Amino acid sequence: RVDEARLTSLVEQLGRVGAQSSGGIIRPLYSPPWREAQDMVATMMSDAGLSVREDAVGNVFGRLAGDTAGPVLLTGSHIDTVVHGGAYDGALGVLSAIVALEACAAAGGTPRRTVEVVSLCEEESSRFHANYFGTRSILGLVAENEPELLVDPDGVTLAEAARSVGLDPARFSDARRDDIDTFLELHIEQGRTLVDAAIDVGVVDVITGFMWLEVVVDGRTDHAGATAMTNRQDALQAAARMITAVEGVALAEGHPAVATTGVVRVHPGGANIVPGRVEFTIDVRHPELDVLDQMVAAMREQCAAVATDRGVQVDLQVVKKTPPHTLDAGLRAVLQQAADTCGLTWRELPSGAGHDSQTMGTHVKAAMLFVPSVDGRSHSPAEYSTPHDCAQGASVLATAVRLLAWA
Amino acid sequence: RVDEARLTSLVEQLGRVGAQSSGGIIRPLYSPPWREAQDMVATMMSDAGLSVREDAVGNVFGRLAGDTAGPVLLTGSHIDTVVHGGAYDGALGVLSAIVALEACAAAGGTPRRTVEVVSLCEEESSRFHANYFGTRSILGLVAENEPELLVDPDGVTLAEAARSVGLDPARFSDARRDDIDTFLELHIEQGRTLVDAAIDVGVVDVITGFMWLEVVVDGRTDHAGATAMTNRQDALQAAARMITAVEGVALAEGHPAVATTGVVRVHPGGANIVPGRVEFTIDVRHPELDVLDQMVAAMREQCAAVATDRGVQVDLQVVKKTPPHTLDAGLRAVLQQAADTCGLTWRELPSGAGHDSQTMGTHVKAAMLFVPSVDGRSHSPAEYSTPHDCAQGASVLATAVRLLAWA
Ligand SMILES: NC(=O)NCCC(=O)O
Ligand SMILES: NC(=O)NCCC(=O)O
Repeated sequence: RVDEARLTSLVEQLGRVGAQSSGGIIRPLYSPPWREAQDMVATMMSDAGLSVREDAVGNVFGRLAGDTAGPVLLTGSHIDTVVHGGAYDGALGVLSAIVALEACAAAGGTPRRTVEVVSLCEEESSRFHANYFGTRSILGLVAENEPELLVDPDGVTLAEAARSVGLDPARFSDARRDDIDTFLELHIEQGRTLVDAAIDVGVVDVITGFMWLEVVVDGRTDHAGATAMTNRQDALQAAARMITAVEGVALAEGHPAVATTGVVRVHPGGANIVPGRVEFTIDVRHPELDVLDQMVAAMREQCAAVATDRGVQVDLQVVKKTPPHTLDAGLRAVLQQAADTCGLTWRELPSGAGHDSQTMGTHVKAAMLFVPSVDGRSHSPAEYSTPHDCAQGASVLATAVRLLAWA
Repeated sequence: RVDEARLTSLVEQLGRVGAQSSGGIIRPLYSPPWREAQDMVATMMSDAGLSVREDAVGNVFGRLAGDTAGPVLLTGSHIDTVVHGGAYDGALGVLSAIVALEACAAAGGTPRRTVEVVSLCEEESSRFHANYFGTRSILGLVAENEPELLVDPDGVTLAEAARSVGLDPARFSDARRDDIDTFLELHIEQGRTLVDAAIDVGVVDVITGFMWLEVVVDGRTDHAGATAMTNRQDALQAAARMITAVEGVALAEGHPAVATTGVVRVHPGGANIVPGRVEFTIDVRHPELDVLDQMVAAMREQCAAVATDRGVQVDLQVVKKTPPHTLDAGLRAVLQQAADTCGLTWRELPSGAGHDSQTMGTHVKAAMLFVPSVDGRSHSPAEYSTPHDCAQGASVLATAVRLLAWA
């Protein structure tokens, strides 16, 4: 059993890093609050008796050495947030892992195998389309030119951003490891399944597949007063219909399909100027890869039809594609056994959010544990999980780690 | 007749101030390029033999004293631009007036009454909702607290912006004048009537009425992957339908009704975050005030219906309302006579764009002259009028000024 008060206090401390007076947390990859957060996590790990190391891309590890040389059991999550995100998404998985390892160590004995906590540098793709940059770095999946190619909305490359927090992009490939064979990730559910059913913890069976599209609509800027309605190529009026179609495709496919436009940029952006260009994003998800592909094809078709109808041009690029991933059956059974041992109720459920486990799971055995999200809120300042639920989840994680590394 | 080459050269010079490498001109009120432009115009006026004065709000005047003390004949237009606007909207009216006065003076004699050129500080409302700030200052229509209340998108007040270019907001009321009785404004048409009919100049009969609305849609931020489509209050999906309705209201009313959404801000603005808040503008216009009011009422109703349908809140504020204005019949006759004298074809036509003459005309006699816009393009880097058409317009203006002030 982990110490609920201690976990709560760690969550509160880390939640102050990047907190905004307007609400929520902004802690993007390689920003000053990101640096502060990783340094704080390193101190927390060290306070928990772990030996700390930061790798070449800024993943922070806390190690509890085992008495045999076998492969490492890794547990943790990510430290970056979306814009105005909450204090739990990512952070809870890192901090739960720290208190879980503390509890494991306190329970006595030396682990048979080495166990490490990881605070991954990036998961949200909220500054760069970095796409699980921390995990991909560990797995050696980052292309050599990526740090120069990935650019944030202000035109800063990922390489420049890394240098600004004291990292050397030329050494990024050093982050690769081949000694890990298992990854356990605790995360908030970010949906309402557990909270609505009053279940203590969730064991994830499948993580959704998802794609991000960038759509550019080109029309013609004109005077909003002097240009007749019938003589316009208004990029925004076209985009409004496309954005409506994005929702339509997901509704037509039905649950659990989802599709979202979260970013819209209108150019030139004057109240009395007919918009000449609109850029917007589409986030589309489904746990079956072929359905995901069909949804994107349908959106492509519908956007093209709107463009033809309204005399504008449309360009639709896929900027990110993460296939669905089914988690390791053996590890899921261990998590279920651990929940039973703790006397907690559990349920298997899918994840509509993407996770590091999705990519980690393509190379090592991976499993995920969910704790309930109050009202299912996430990617919002309203994100919240009760201290009790968080501690229960961390206790299941601790129990699973004991089962896997001490038994 | 004015000197075409000289007018063309002045337009080119001023068009370089605030020019963007990405196309078009950005010269908002009280910005550094605005300051540079007014200083350049002052030099041009002085080169043309006019005595120059800048008033308390930054309107620049060039004076040719008459030999009697009667009321002043004012001619000119504005110097500010929209974002990525063109080199003619506003500027051509100022520069034509300078070369017109030069031509009048060159034709010999002293004017019977004083004639002044004005380079008005603001017309576009592109930085602040300043709503003909230059003209309103001259007419004493600016409320005392306005400079502190008007705020740009970066949170800078109009008063702060004024101080940054060396003006003192405490002295703004000094800009008021009671000695003007006539205003003539040359402007590009910004539409296709003249160019399509191959008419040399236009004499405006009525300037459209228009209103600007700011709409705020409040929904709920959520995770784009973990939140079912049926459990969302997506502010953007609602806004997309409202923006579609904006166009629908104008189309239903029919020509010459127009309605435009030119600015959209999506919050928090992350690809994997369901938008919790969207702000957008509506610019709606009609030459009949009651039809304008009906259109706004229809938009209010349709936005409310969308909000109810989609479970979001909507707030719609009128931030600007400029009634239509019929220009002075006597002055229109003078402009027509001047065009005839120059041997040019002319047509009476309405203006779908708002103009300083609209507000000036509520206190002094006002009339407007249009020159053709190639392809009707305006509020765009593509804005263009031929040197020949510009010079013809300026010649008509010069002839009208001779008729009004020398005859
Ligand atoms: N868990 C989570 O919020 N991941 C970020 C990637 C995504 O699902 O949008
Ligand atoms: N003439 C002109 O572009 N005026 C700006 C105000 C407006 O009509 O939008």
